[in-house]
Amino acid sequence: MTHTLDRLWQTVENRRTADPETSWTAKLLSKGPEKCAEKFGEEAIEALIEAVKGDRDALTREGADVLYHFCIMLASRNVALRDVLDELDRRDGESGLTEKAARPK
Amino acid sequence: MTHTLDRLWQTVENRRTADPETSWTAKLLSKGPEKCAEKFGEEAIEALIEAVKGDRDALTREGADVLYHFCIMLASRNVALRDVLDELDRRDGESGLTEKAARPK
Amino acid sequence: MTHTLDRLWQTVENRRTADPETSWTAKLLSKGPEKCAEKFGEEAIEALIEAVKGDRDALTREGADVLYHFCIMLASRNVALRDVLDELDRRDGESGLTEKAARPK
Amino acid sequence: MTHTLDRLWQTVENRRTADPETSWTAKLLSKGPEKCAEKFGEEAIEALIEAVKGDRDALTREGADVLYHFCIMLASRNVALRDVLDELDRRDGESGLTEKAARPK
Repeated sequence: MTHTLDRLWQTVENRRTADPETSWTAKLLSKGPEKCAEKFGEEAIEALIEAVKGDRDALTREGADVLYHFCIMLASRNVALRDVLDELDRRDGESGLTEKAARPK
Repeated sequence: MTHTLDRLWQTVENRRTADPETSWTAKLLSKGPEKCAEKFGEEAIEALIEAVKGDRDALTREGADVLYHFCIMLASRNVALRDVLDELDRRDGESGLTEKAARPK
Repeated sequence: MTHTLDRLWQTVENRRTADPETSWTAKLLSKGPEKCAEKFGEEAIEALIEAVKGDRDALTREGADVLYHFCIMLASRNVALRDVLDELDRRDGESGLTEKAARPK
Repeated sequence: MTHTLDRLWQTVENRRTADPETSWTAKLLSKGPEKCAEKFGEEAIEALIEAVKGDRDALTREGADVLYHFCIMLASRNVALRDVLDELDRRDGESGLTEKAARPK
């Protein structure tokens, strides 16, 4: 069975060519990567505020918005969700602290 | 086969009780939800900046960081990733714009 | 002559009791500190995106929005702008790096 | 007497040419506008989290960090603080809601 996240990604991909009048995804993508990035940032802030407040239902809802707009932001730059997941697979098994130390920041 | 995101979630859940000296996840969780939320926010900003710049490799890497710290933020409030995915499933099929109009914001 | 920032602060303070129908400040404050914090976060992201893009005119405009919503966020928690400025005065003269090292983070 | 914010701006301007080893401002500016924007974003998030938590002392301290890194972000793009203040003066007197409606967003 297709995983929810992959189906979400498919939906975003499918709506790329949809009518911006009826599709939020198409509308946002039509505004360009900067607007998609801004919108993702807004959703991230809404989610983190609910995390700070400790409202678990609101965090669940805002978390869904985060994943959705995360996919739109990736799509706006033609980065596939699969590439991000591959990067996570690559890191898998490494300890977080080791990973962190290894990151070229 | 287990989906990457579910495995990531399992890793975060498993490290809950790990030694904060050797696990970044355990270390962050030990600092409390506010710190986890702050860290998620920082990673979200790093990712959106790469999206604005248009650096696709950096966006891929920062995107992985976003998903990882998203899971940590959820875990810090005992919200299961599954609950967020269920929320996405629930919305599935609804048009984005319809969904948006329906959201009680 | 009154400094622009102090006048901005006075305007925010004066509008506290204004009609939320006609005053954006009053409307935002009436929604509570979380909404004011969220709005400040959104404006901060808009400004930083313009900084990344390098659009100086847009950065100037978004920068003005940041200062305005910064004041509203402070006002929503009854923190006076003067207290923030006093904190800056207190730090003045210290080297940034020294200051940073001294901060209890 | 010079206003605190103008003095802060002067300090940032003066440190432009300082040694990045001893000046945090010089160090950050040497990393380029994207890093300055990212750092501003981080400070904005720290401040808004304190606003949500309602910790007034922490909000005061983080608020000072916001103004400081706001100036650094402006300086990194050669936008003068005075330009941002002029924009605020220009808007002064307009009602917030009127202003908002007039903004080309």
